[in-house]
Amino acid sequence: MTPIINRTQYRVRYADTDQMGVVYYGNYGRLYEIGRTEMIRQMGLPYRELEETGIAMPVYSVESRYLYKLTYDELITIETEVTELPTARMSFKHRIYNQEGKLANDATVVLVFMDAATGRPVRAPEKLIRLLSD
Amino acid sequence: MTPIINRTQYRVRYADTDQMGVVYYGNYGRLYEIGRTEMIRQMGLPYRELEETGIAMPVYSVESRYLYKLTYDELITIETEVTELPTARMSFKHRIYNQEGKLANDATVVLVFMDAATGRPVRAPEKLIRLLSD
Amino acid sequence: MTPIINRTQYRVRYADTDQMGVVYYGNYGRLYEIGRTEMIRQMGLPYRELEETGIAMPVYSVESRYLYKLTYDELITIETEVTELPTARMSFKHRIYNQEGKLANDATVVLVFMDAATGRPVRAPEKLIRLLSD
Amino acid sequence: MTPIINRTQYRVRYADTDQMGVVYYGNYGRLYEIGRTEMIRQMGLPYRELEETGIAMPVYSVESRYLYKLTYDELITIETEVTELPTARMSFKHRIYNQEGKLANDATVVLVFMDAATGRPVRAPEKLIRLLSD
Repeated sequence: MTPIINRTQYRVRYADTDQMGVVYYGNYGRLYEIGRTEMIRQMGLPYRELEETGIAMPVYSVESRYLYKLTYDELITIETEVTELPTARMSFKHRIYNQEGKLANDATVVLVFMDAATGRPVRAPEKLIRLLSD
Repeated sequence: MTPIINRTQYRVRYADTDQMGVVYYGNYGRLYEIGRTEMIRQMGLPYRELEETGIAMPVYSVESRYLYKLTYDELITIETEVTELPTARMSFKHRIYNQEGKLANDATVVLVFMDAATGRPVRAPEKLIRLLSD
Repeated sequence: MTPIINRTQYRVRYADTDQMGVVYYGNYGRLYEIGRTEMIRQMGLPYRELEETGIAMPVYSVESRYLYKLTYDELITIETEVTELPTARMSFKHRIYNQEGKLANDATVVLVFMDAATGRPVRAPEKLIRLLSD
Repeated sequence: MTPIINRTQYRVRYADTDQMGVVYYGNYGRLYEIGRTEMIRQMGLPYRELEETGIAMPVYSVESRYLYKLTYDELITIETEVTELPTARMSFKHRIYNQEGKLANDATVVLVFMDAATGRPVRAPEKLIRLLSD
């Protein structure tokens, strides 16, 4: 597949900061969520619709490196890339840039596909694979 | 009924603070939740069990005054009081004290009883009223 | 003064929800923050600049009513109104509408002006009053 | 050094859950923070005191695997282990067990030592190394 990239902007809020004056490390999960959600929305398959077909996508793993601080009120860019077709898992690469374009964080987040009713793992929905293959 | 009071301690975490160096005003909802949950657990009716009977208790209103700051690593006290038997609603009064015993916040949080399946308001469960009447 | 209104849209994230399937009541503080921040930015005085002049604006009180649920992925509207010139305090009225335009929450949040260095209350900055008086 | 282990219990709150009915993946940062903070408190060096000497410890990296869900009201156990003396970095291994003792998450969180005034990296404080060497 051709790699797919989404870029979404996010304004850092007081709610995101901690007393070190930067975005709290534990709040990056929200940023990755925004990145992957907007990517699959852009592809034409909002996560909400995916859930309505009975599929859930719990997170399996996160690998994250904090390279530079993000500060209050910055308009940051969340870059999200998918380079491989999903199988039982789907992997998202994120790069977060601060307002000046400096790389502040990179991360890989892996999700699994699950039948929401039974809690059992399933393969990626055909529609999602088709959208990524185009 | 005789007023019922619960006191629960809570350690302030980095996750709770913002760049002003104090607990972010938007994080007090978690503190009130801890207060009311531990109160009804102490009475003998964990909220989890209440939910298992098909009742949910969404919050209807919050009135909160921030009187003094709470800072990182303080061992604060959440005091929760119920003074009236619940009807269709249940009202909790909270007073939060900092580590030195200074009143930092007072709040009233009102919840309603709801049938979780239908989303319709219901009256307070008999068991809860009985526990509060004793 | 002529009342000033700002409307800002916000996409509800998984991070905002709780297991009741709606936005957790304790996460509305973030929504009010976004509303008041975008209002004063629109007026020409970003809160970040205000802080750079040595002023902080801690929240003094919140009164909030939860009238209808907000659910995952909705594009909600945060309406923020200022109707009175600030003195030692500044009052923001918020109305949050769900994606269908139904009123889900209304709230009044009062902030105080504080000298960030000394922690003492001060009067509202002249620039802010002037911008609101126009 | 002899590996040091701390075990801290934590009650899952509504605030921690998301609409999948489990602890939101982005809220585990709070759990790791609690684990490492209680570990170094147990060793005799509260993080707050460390900060008062002008040292900050921003997070450099997180590697986390989500193996099993954590649900509302569970009394979970956060196990934190340090196996190596800190140099410019300090590495914490976490294992989080659900109420039944099932391993739900393991993670490695690496922090760096920083001079809070200059923002420059520094070596681990002698006192911390001494406490870990004993």
